[in-house]
Amino acid sequence: MALTLDALNAASSGDFVELLDGTYEHSPWIAERAAAARPYLTLAALKVALARVVREASIDEQLALIRAHPELAGKAAVAGVLTAESTNEQHKAGLTACTPEEFATLQRLNADYNAKFGFPFILAVRGPRGTGLTRQEIISTFERRLRAHPDLERAECLRQIHRIAEIRLADKFGAEPKLGQQLWDWAAELARHSDDAEWLTCLYGTPAHTAVAEQLMAWMRDSGFDDVCRDAVGNVVGLYRGQGEQRLLTGSHYDTVRRAGRFDGRLGVLAPLLAVRELHRTGKRLPFGIEVIAFAEEEGQRFAATFLASSALAGSFDPAWLDQLDADGTTLRAAMQAAGLPGTLDAIAALKRDPARYLGFVEVHIEQGPVLNSLDLPLGIVTSINGSRRYTGEVVGLASHAGTTPMGQRRDAAAAVAELILFVEQRAAAAAPDVVGTVGMLDVPSGSINVIPGRCRFSLDLRATTDAARDALDADVRAKLHEICERRGLSFSLTPTMAASAAPSHPAWQARWEAAVTALGLPLHHLPSGAGHDAMKLHERLPQAMLFVRGGNGGISHNPLESVTVEDAELAISAMLTLLQLS
Amino acid sequence: MALTLDALNAASSGDFVELLDGTYEHSPWIAERAAAARPYLTLAALKVALARVVREASIDEQLALIRAHPELAGKAAVAGVLTAESTNEQHKAGLTACTPEEFATLQRLNADYNAKFGFPFILAVRGPRGTGLTRQEIISTFERRLRAHPDLERAECLRQIHRIAEIRLADKFGAEPKLGQQLWDWAAELARHSDDAEWLTCLYGTPAHTAVAEQLMAWMRDSGFDDVCRDAVGNVVGLYRGQGEQRLLTGSHYDTVRRAGRFDGRLGVLAPLLAVRELHRTGKRLPFGIEVIAFAEEEGQRFAATFLASSALAGSFDPAWLDQLDADGTTLRAAMQAAGLPGTLDAIAALKRDPARYLGFVEVHIEQGPVLNSLDLPLGIVTSINGSRRYTGEVVGLASHAGTTPMGQRRDAAAAVAELILFVEQRAAAAAPDVVGTVGMLDVPSGSINVIPGRCRFSLDLRATTDAARDALDADVRAKLHEICERRGLSFSLTPTMAASAAPSHPAWQARWEAAVTALGLPLHHLPSGAGHDAMKLHERLPQAMLFVRGGNGGISHNPLESVTVEDAELAISAMLTLLQLS
Repeated sequence: MALTLDALNAASSGDFVELLDGTYEHSPWIAERAAAARPYLTLAALKVALARVVREASIDEQLALIRAHPELAGKAAVAGVLTAESTNEQHKAGLTACTPEEFATLQRLNADYNAKFGFPFILAVRGPRGTGLTRQEIISTFERRLRAHPDLERAECLRQIHRIAEIRLADKFGAEPKLGQQLWDWAAELARHSDDAEWLTCLYGTPAHTAVAEQLMAWMRDSGFDDVCRDAVGNVVGLYRGQGEQRLLTGSHYDTVRRAGRFDGRLGVLAPLLAVRELHRTGKRLPFGIEVIAFAEEEGQRFAATFLASSALAGSFDPAWLDQLDADGTTLRAAMQAAGLPGTLDAIAALKRDPARYLGFVEVHIEQGPVLNSLDLPLGIVTSINGSRRYTGEVVGLASHAGTTPMGQRRDAAAAVAELILFVEQRAAAAAPDVVGTVGMLDVPSGSINVIPGRCRFSLDLRATTDAARDALDADVRAKLHEICERRGLSFSLTPTMAASAAPSHPAWQARWEAAVTALGLPLHHLPSGAGHDAMKLHERLPQAMLFVRGGNGGISHNPLESVTVEDAELAISAMLTLLQLS
Repeated sequence: MALTLDALNAASSGDFVELLDGTYEHSPWIAERAAAARPYLTLAALKVALARVVREASIDEQLALIRAHPELAGKAAVAGVLTAESTNEQHKAGLTACTPEEFATLQRLNADYNAKFGFPFILAVRGPRGTGLTRQEIISTFERRLRAHPDLERAECLRQIHRIAEIRLADKFGAEPKLGQQLWDWAAELARHSDDAEWLTCLYGTPAHTAVAEQLMAWMRDSGFDDVCRDAVGNVVGLYRGQGEQRLLTGSHYDTVRRAGRFDGRLGVLAPLLAVRELHRTGKRLPFGIEVIAFAEEEGQRFAATFLASSALAGSFDPAWLDQLDADGTTLRAAMQAAGLPGTLDAIAALKRDPARYLGFVEVHIEQGPVLNSLDLPLGIVTSINGSRRYTGEVVGLASHAGTTPMGQRRDAAAAVAELILFVEQRAAAAAPDVVGTVGMLDVPSGSINVIPGRCRFSLDLRATTDAARDALDADVRAKLHEICERRGLSFSLTPTMAASAAPSHPAWQARWEAAVTALGLPLHHLPSGAGHDAMKLHERLPQAMLFVRGGNGGISHNPLESVTVEDAELAISAMLTLLQLS
């Protein structure tokens, strides 16, 4: 019989530990410490609490937990002396059916990994979907993580242990995240349409892009949307009518970067799509209509006209964009027409939304960063989409002989940029979490080992939750660069390449996300969005607020390793449903 | 009638100023302040004293001195209202015969220069040879200096003013530096033999290289050397016999880098060649023979076997070098044979010198750095040829999103290298002038403006006057890199690419150079050699000491702008003659 939260909450401390036995491998201390914080209102709340116990434990305790796990396909697995859970998991991943070559590879990896880190490699072999990774996925993950830094790898092992525990709890509770699984499977199905044979790439206006739009329209129709269409810029728009005329707009983009992950953008389309399917399934109509939009373009990959799709809704589509060329010399207009879109300004202008008809815009998005993952939290409340300024720059000094030029007579361009890099780092850290600053490009052109750098090129990327914080950071960094070059007798140039205003979340809509997350039993964590999103464009016209979903693999994004679990996807859909019913 | 030092030293202060009138344009205060330090034993001593007055003057006084000069080909020149000296100089440089285009270019340059710096462009238009620069040389120098930093350019104007004064004093004193002129003209003649049509490039074993060797042999024979030959590695060796069997070895290299200057190496061949010519002309024989050697290879340009020529003398020629390939796939052995050399190990082994037969090795060389030029000193005493260690390295962090990765969760490889750069700079400055340290190569591979650097490559070049100081710097830098990466959770690799031991000057030979420089009335300035020289190789077998000669144009080297004046060349030859007669 499946375990229930009621049974857990009512049990003695000893029974609580007993009921959770096997969740964390040979480590009852975790449940012991979590017993006092009962009652747990949701399974998600219990998982967060267990993870918190581990995060707050000593490093020795964390290492003991890691070392309590068997090696992958190791002697214990072969000898059949694992815990029942481990045996089941390794079996589901096919690790009990390795070829001799795979077995030999895994033994070599185990040995190398142990030699480097001093603990066994931990991987939730049932994966983010819960149904098991392939042996090839396991081996390539093993090889990749073997190259990681020890601190990061210890943290990753703990995350994998929490994922193992999550799957074991789902089994114990008989809790199948069916909506999350559907979202995950749909994301996988969309990823089959790609411009590239090997990786997921879905650029604006390509056949793969059109195929994704058609698939989304089909799912919308099947899910009970009343009106479904593809608009003049290729956005897929589905309306689920409400009792009144007002609508809530929600969605995200379906185009991708090159060599992308499956969830960036699409998570924020599929979550409200499935929420509406649930409303329709249960026969619910809300006081307002729900307009779910899958934006055709957000990533700025094929044309420089980034956010062209949400710009059309905001009424800020620049007519000159139609003449922009892609790398093959095709205009945006021609690309639109090749994809079956009118490609006329009149049709695009008609997409502009009247703010009076909309309650606002909400967007669900994968975080694309490490914050929620490192805190073991599935959801986060976005406070603002950061404003930014970007520059490319160059410091010019005097190239001279590294051996014969005394330290006091140098005009070292790279040393000046080194000072700037450390200033940006310190200045941004001092104003964290409201700002970030990065020197991403760095280069001494034609540098030689025995020549003092006469030139050093660099880039600056400054972001902040408010325009005021961004401008203060910007002014300080530029003043510092000026001071450094003045003091060192160097000259510099600095060229602005981008500026974007911050888009703070609307308090009322942010509060609704907060209420939805709280209703799931989860603690609130607020964070800014460092990346730009469609919500930033809609911000020009409508109140907006975003919800972030944890990304696995350290929060990596714009990469095939981007990852969301079915449990986290389920929570995102639940949060969306709650928000809709609170609004 | 020519002015004499006796007259100057005996004059009243007022007469002293009067006698030097016109040396520094409309600025009698310079002579006034130099009057008290009489007597001046040499013209060189007077020039150093005058320059020192200017160097120690206030910036306002220096600017007034600069502004006392007319613009080049300016209105004053056209109106004929310049001082007699200025008119004569501008006339000798052909500036009174500009084409309308040249005149227009100069007016534009004058305007731009004045707008940027606030003072007129100063150039000793009679140049390092004293016979006048071409109009094209003047215009290209003007264009180049227009791009300089204001502090450096003000200093360069003062140097040019000292050069103008030097030429004016030579006229007043009727002091023609005939040996220096001969050296300068011979260097120009050697520079006609080049592997490259446009620039001076003279690589080992090329036809130009052989032509230079033949020219040097011809001059040696004409100058009274007793035995002259080209040896098995292409060195040109001339012997001027002494009264005894012992010999003093001296010389430098005649190969060049690509796009070279005329004096690097060759100055140290021609100075002793002309010194011997003087001895022969005056019928002098010394107690010891003088073996002047023009080394065939020092720069390591064509083959990796740097210092192959002096290595042969030191007995450290590596037999494996003969099989090294140049960029065209020619072996060193084949290159030797193509140049008419035997290319056999037996012949090369026979070049090894027996230390018992030699008193030592002395070498004159252009400084290849800014020190003497910035101190207005023509000659410097080398205390040591720096030992060195070189590395290439890479720091590895984690590339992640510049917007979404909080400051506290970054693994920024470039920020770590920035710390290292500043540490190297501070650590080397703290131990100056004994050490220098440089990060010359710097690069974030495939860096993006919005991605935190996951990798950063760099180079390290560490040099010191003693092996102990070098090793201490090396240990501190490596410990710091380790500490930075440990603290920041990064990994790094560091690959040694070179190590060379320091070659401190032999006290007795250094003392002879000091005596020779003192005899010229010049103050002693000691400095290490940051660059490697043939003396470093001979150091393995013989006591050695070097003399440095000031380089113009900020001390630039390995560049066509490398420059030595005829006056400084004359002083170098005089110092060599004095050293020979002191030994």
